[in-house]
Amino acid sequence: MIQMIVVGALKESYLREGQQYFLDEISKREDVELIELEDEKVPETASEKELTMIRQIEGQKILSKVNRLNTMIAMDIDGKSMTKDKWSNLFEQHRTQKKGMTFIIGGSVGLSDEVKQRANFRVSFSRLTFPHQLFRLMLLEQIADAIL
Amino acid sequence: MIQMIVVGALKESYLREGQQYFLDEISKREDVELIELEDEKVPETASEKELTMIRQIEGQKILSKVNRLNTMIAMDIDGKSMTKDKWSNLFEQHRTQKKGMTFIIGGSVGLSDEVKQRANFRVSFSRLTFPHQLFRLMLLEQIADAIL
Repeated sequence: MIQMIVVGALKESYLREGQQYFLDEISKREDVELIELEDEKVPETASEKELTMIRQIEGQKILSKVNRLNTMIAMDIDGKSMTKDKWSNLFEQHRTQKKGMTFIIGGSVGLSDEVKQRANFRVSFSRLTFPHQLFRLMLLEQIADAIL
Repeated sequence: MIQMIVVGALKESYLREGQQYFLDEISKREDVELIELEDEKVPETASEKELTMIRQIEGQKILSKVNRLNTMIAMDIDGKSMTKDKWSNLFEQHRTQKKGMTFIIGGSVGLSDEVKQRANFRVSFSRLTFPHQLFRLMLLEQIADAIL
């Protein structure tokens, strides 16, 4: 069972179509659940303190949705850099143990420290930052590739 | 002037829409040219020798299209790993020198050695491999982000 918890809605239709494409692919092999949480409004002049608060509110919402039987994997630019082999092994292990996986992508201001600390793994795809909306497709594609 | 040379057509409509979205964004600031080359048919049972030949044929087509005034940047998983800073600096340098940039994404069998050797830079976004079609969006997004 694959669970994906993300913050913010996809604005562009091409992203929504792409998301559906990959969800369909994944669901051919495995139960998949996508939980899209509403993002908090970010004031243009938000202070660091306000940003931390937004991260915390979004973080609480995320943590309340995590399936507790699953391994929790937070996508984090400072996380462990993934190669194809490491990524495949992660899925292979979970398949063997029949354990579910919950993937988390934060909103535009990133993940709270609490989410990062509670995660079982923190994973980085790239040392570049991608918009969290496009990143959603990148993660879905890599999940589809790993289970098909 | 940004030139992008890619091998193979985008099959999914969401990818074509996404591509157009980013091309529109980029063209607000800079001339941009996308050259989509037809990919060679890859037999399912292709030997390593046949794959090398396909890469060479596609490589020749790519090299014939490169704008010779431009810096040639090949996207290559074994290339130099990019951070946001290195990526921005690359564009900043070219802006200062008023020099164009040609980005190259190979087809499903990758780039020929000749293309890699002729390139001025070989750049890697991730140690994971993404399908070259989705990767096109990732590159377009990073170009748009760097020049806007």
